[in-house]
Amino acid sequence: MTDVPATEEKDEFRAAFPQSRRIYVEGSRPDIRVPMREISLSPTRSRAGKILRENAPVRVYDTSGPWGDAALRNDIRKGLPATRLPWILERGDVEAVPARPAAPAPRTGCRVEEFDRGNRVVYRAKPGARITQMDYARRGIITPEMEFVAIRENMKQQEAREENGGLSPRQRLSFSHAGESFGASIPQEITPEFVRAEIARGRAILPANINHPEAEPMIIGRNFLVKINTNIGNSAVASGIEEEVEKMRWSCLWGGDTLMDLSTGKNIRATREWILRNCPVPVGTVPIYQALEKVGGKSEELTWEVFRETLIEQAEQGVDYFTIHACVKKDFIPLAASRMTGIVSRGGSIMAKWCSRHNAENFLWEHWDEICEIMAAYDIGVSIGDGLRPGSVADANDEAQFAELKAQGELTLRAWEHGVQVMNEGPGHVPAQLIRVNMENQLSWCHEAPFYTLGPLTTDIAPGYDHITSAIGAALIGWRGCAMLCYVTPKEHLGLPNREDVRAGVVAYKIAAHAADLAKGHPAAQYRDNALSRARFEFRWEDQFALSLDPEHARRLHDEALPQDAAKQAAFCSMCGPDFCSMRISSELNAETDKV
Amino acid sequence: MTDVPATEEKDEFRAAFPQSRRIYVEGSRPDIRVPMREISLSPTRSRAGKILRENAPVRVYDTSGPWGDAALRNDIRKGLPATRLPWILERGDVEAVPARPAAPAPRTGCRVEEFDRGNRVVYRAKPGARITQMDYARRGIITPEMEFVAIRENMKQQEAREENGGLSPRQRLSFSHAGESFGASIPQEITPEFVRAEIARGRAILPANINHPEAEPMIIGRNFLVKINTNIGNSAVASGIEEEVEKMRWSCLWGGDTLMDLSTGKNIRATREWILRNCPVPVGTVPIYQALEKVGGKSEELTWEVFRETLIEQAEQGVDYFTIHACVKKDFIPLAASRMTGIVSRGGSIMAKWCSRHNAENFLWEHWDEICEIMAAYDIGVSIGDGLRPGSVADANDEAQFAELKAQGELTLRAWEHGVQVMNEGPGHVPAQLIRVNMENQLSWCHEAPFYTLGPLTTDIAPGYDHITSAIGAALIGWRGCAMLCYVTPKEHLGLPNREDVRAGVVAYKIAAHAADLAKGHPAAQYRDNALSRARFEFRWEDQFALSLDPEHARRLHDEALPQDAAKQAAFCSMCGPDFCSMRISSELNAETDKV
Repeated sequence: MTDVPATEEKDEFRAAFPQSRRIYVEGSRPDIRVPMREISLSPTRSRAGKILRENAPVRVYDTSGPWGDAALRNDIRKGLPATRLPWILERGDVEAVPARPAAPAPRTGCRVEEFDRGNRVVYRAKPGARITQMDYARRGIITPEMEFVAIRENMKQQEAREENGGLSPRQRLSFSHAGESFGASIPQEITPEFVRAEIARGRAILPANINHPEAEPMIIGRNFLVKINTNIGNSAVASGIEEEVEKMRWSCLWGGDTLMDLSTGKNIRATREWILRNCPVPVGTVPIYQALEKVGGKSEELTWEVFRETLIEQAEQGVDYFTIHACVKKDFIPLAASRMTGIVSRGGSIMAKWCSRHNAENFLWEHWDEICEIMAAYDIGVSIGDGLRPGSVADANDEAQFAELKAQGELTLRAWEHGVQVMNEGPGHVPAQLIRVNMENQLSWCHEAPFYTLGPLTTDIAPGYDHITSAIGAALIGWRGCAMLCYVTPKEHLGLPNREDVRAGVVAYKIAAHAADLAKGHPAAQYRDNALSRARFEFRWEDQFALSLDPEHARRLHDEALPQDAAKQAAFCSMCGPDFCSMRISSELNAETDKV
Repeated sequence: MTDVPATEEKDEFRAAFPQSRRIYVEGSRPDIRVPMREISLSPTRSRAGKILRENAPVRVYDTSGPWGDAALRNDIRKGLPATRLPWILERGDVEAVPARPAAPAPRTGCRVEEFDRGNRVVYRAKPGARITQMDYARRGIITPEMEFVAIRENMKQQEAREENGGLSPRQRLSFSHAGESFGASIPQEITPEFVRAEIARGRAILPANINHPEAEPMIIGRNFLVKINTNIGNSAVASGIEEEVEKMRWSCLWGGDTLMDLSTGKNIRATREWILRNCPVPVGTVPIYQALEKVGGKSEELTWEVFRETLIEQAEQGVDYFTIHACVKKDFIPLAASRMTGIVSRGGSIMAKWCSRHNAENFLWEHWDEICEIMAAYDIGVSIGDGLRPGSVADANDEAQFAELKAQGELTLRAWEHGVQVMNEGPGHVPAQLIRVNMENQLSWCHEAPFYTLGPLTTDIAPGYDHITSAIGAALIGWRGCAMLCYVTPKEHLGLPNREDVRAGVVAYKIAAHAADLAKGHPAAQYRDNALSRARFEFRWEDQFALSLDPEHARRLHDEALPQDAAKQAAFCSMCGPDFCSMRISSELNAETDKV
């Protein structure tokens, strides 16, 4: 392994988000400190420069963790602070266990440096104890984690601080259209009790492995802000460990809510340790990838024992949720044979091959209860995989896909019996008119467990632009109740995403998620649009950039034609020029009307 | 003006679209020749290289005109061939008129070279003759233009030529999901008679000024393929004439169906002449921009006489449709005063200022019948502008916007009395849940005249990515029946788009339009997705690129990790590598099953 940088580079965070600072909103106890990014704004001025109104700073949801706090000195070799550890230990229901040694990977070749865990301890539930957030919620307990996410979801709270002098109702930050939520139950204010109730009934999950105390609590459910997942991971062909850790920080910087480590190359375990110790968001994996690595890449040699060991190894490292393709049942596989694009899930194709070679039922299905027992002991969530998702518009909503979705519903109920938090994975490639029935079937068959979809891509004809083909589908399904959207980058179908692809994918998905939040009427959504549009109308260019999802990009595009500093005060841009600027004419018109 | 290149650069067309050639499908007479791009495909081979199936070439809609025909030698100084002129003249209802001299623009400074019109003649309707496509359609006449678009809309016809040996129904190019069309009437086959009937009842328009015989006929209506418009135009701040002509060719290359010349800088008229003589798609303008130029940029000095002269000048040049902001009525202007972002249409703000200064009704509204008489004499379509469209999510669907939309409906009926083909412009910034009522109101209040929207943008928070925020809204409204989508580039709100911005905007909108075509169930949509997905599943990488909207971009992204030629035959890519390629595993699985 090449050198791991000893300290973080704060400058990239500052450069990405100007006029911003990290603040913390404290909860009912001093160690509940919810991070937010606060964007300061300049005053509104008359054309003559007179201050007409001060503009209160605007707070936005912040996923960058300690990496986004300029006051902290983080060291990638030491890992992030274990903020959540006291909450875990004070509950008195976990115990330290000896970590099992990593099974040596057979195809090592070049080994990467191991992360030094120091005096970190591995925990699991005490015998007989039920320690998942779902268990607590069912027992009526509001955990600090639940309170944390309640505060976090209520981003809108700053609106009370707004100066409304002289503004019409529609001009205020608090103005919001009614949403259309298709039967969701989104409250005007998210309370800790609401969070508890949603987790108790399985309609939301709070993925939080007790061995990943570095992660900041977040919630996934249709009555909350739509979340996005980003994928990283080295494949056998490209990428290395330091690149992966940096990609993790990078995707959290731009707004990734969870992160899946989909590594399939060498040194899966060591890479994952570096990521977990430095990652402020929940981490998911697909354990079958590592299990396959352990049997030399031969799917027919996979066994329950190898898989079980892999689960425990990853549980002890701190993985927050597992994608498990338990519903690729033997009887469903022939249904995919006449498809346009067969089986396009990696996990799905591995399990289909295993079933086919052994002429036996999927061993993940057979061992479901044991899998759940392991997950429950660490509070690992399960994301029931959709191994038979459609890989083309043609295959959307076919028999194979929906047979698996029904089976996902069965396993959802069985996981809930173990107190395991569940979400269901969904497609894939689905044209717009077929998205509705996907969401409706999932809500019905899977008992309102959160849905977590990959896009879906609404057309197959634009490789190189699949962040866009899928942002359309993601916005649609998010609006209809999908709780988390797995991002798609421009490299989808073509290759492994690099840094700029990750940025493009995250921003496209933040757009889709926010469009969905506005549409379903989440109360903490429209204030940011309002703040940005007001800045735009008042020609506060720097504020417009600062409030945008990607300030540096917006500024760069603006500056291509008008790079001068003076242009940042100008009441026009190069698109229309001064004489044809409608906003300028419109504000002059308003000024005239005021005088009359 | 700097040098205009004497001949076209065919190489950029060939580089953009590999494996492609121009073909023409002939209609009922030899001079009806409908251009299409035919993409040749490689055979499907076994892993051992044996040919399993030949793949017939696939035809796609082609907007690039003679510029996309490698067999032609076009010269920008001579203009494109006037293909449609014989059809216009053989009807015997137009006469040559002396072209009026261009009124000198007052703020000339640097003049551009004038296009040499040679022996071109200006035509208008003979006195008393009714010469619009709508007039012909109402009289039961199927014009060559109507037959041309019928052939053009039926792209699916090649499916009959497909070899279906060994393919399941879902694996065939002809497989298509049922659409959901919200009350549209999309036939399985577009006949010339259907085209005529749709134009007669005003539900579709075929914009075709008799003085723009270079344009290839196309149709805009909810029962046809969703079209996209691109904007070009120099503003007072940036860009020059040769750049604009090149941008026109560039946007047609990528798929722009119509083009609006929104120039607001100097030399508007000369620039437009170069564009019209070289443009294979219908050209629209906003005549008030040039009228404003004529009165030195002072909107209060605009008069009906200046505007009228401008209309005729542009009519004689060959503009195919006019955007006219006749519905920014005096009484509606106060409704916009309490908005978040006021009036954001350039034409709308100019007219609002005029009404306000003169305390008089909008003179475009007052002179509507005279405007229609002018348009009818050249078969110019009208796009009734939405000067009060919302410029922010907050302002969506407000009283000002809908008051204007109702007025658009009134003027639609009055234009139809003159035989003028009409479409209505629409927003703008609209969150997803408020899009439906926009479409429903427009269909109802504007009597099913085609709707033509700018996006809409579904959120305000992503300047720099507004091609994405708006592609989401564009796909949604296109699905619901919007007939044409005005593209938005990444530069929206920030500056004047350059060449790469135009490409990004057009591709994003081709995606939105195609997603809408799939969703509403247009019969000539899904075959291309099917062809691409089958190529993808069979690892025909070059075919996958060639069938995509932007082959060069797809190939470049693929080659970032695997540039070797051999990788174009490989049964994997850098995303997952060979061992984890689901498509590879899936096809191996199919092969095994076949053997059993």
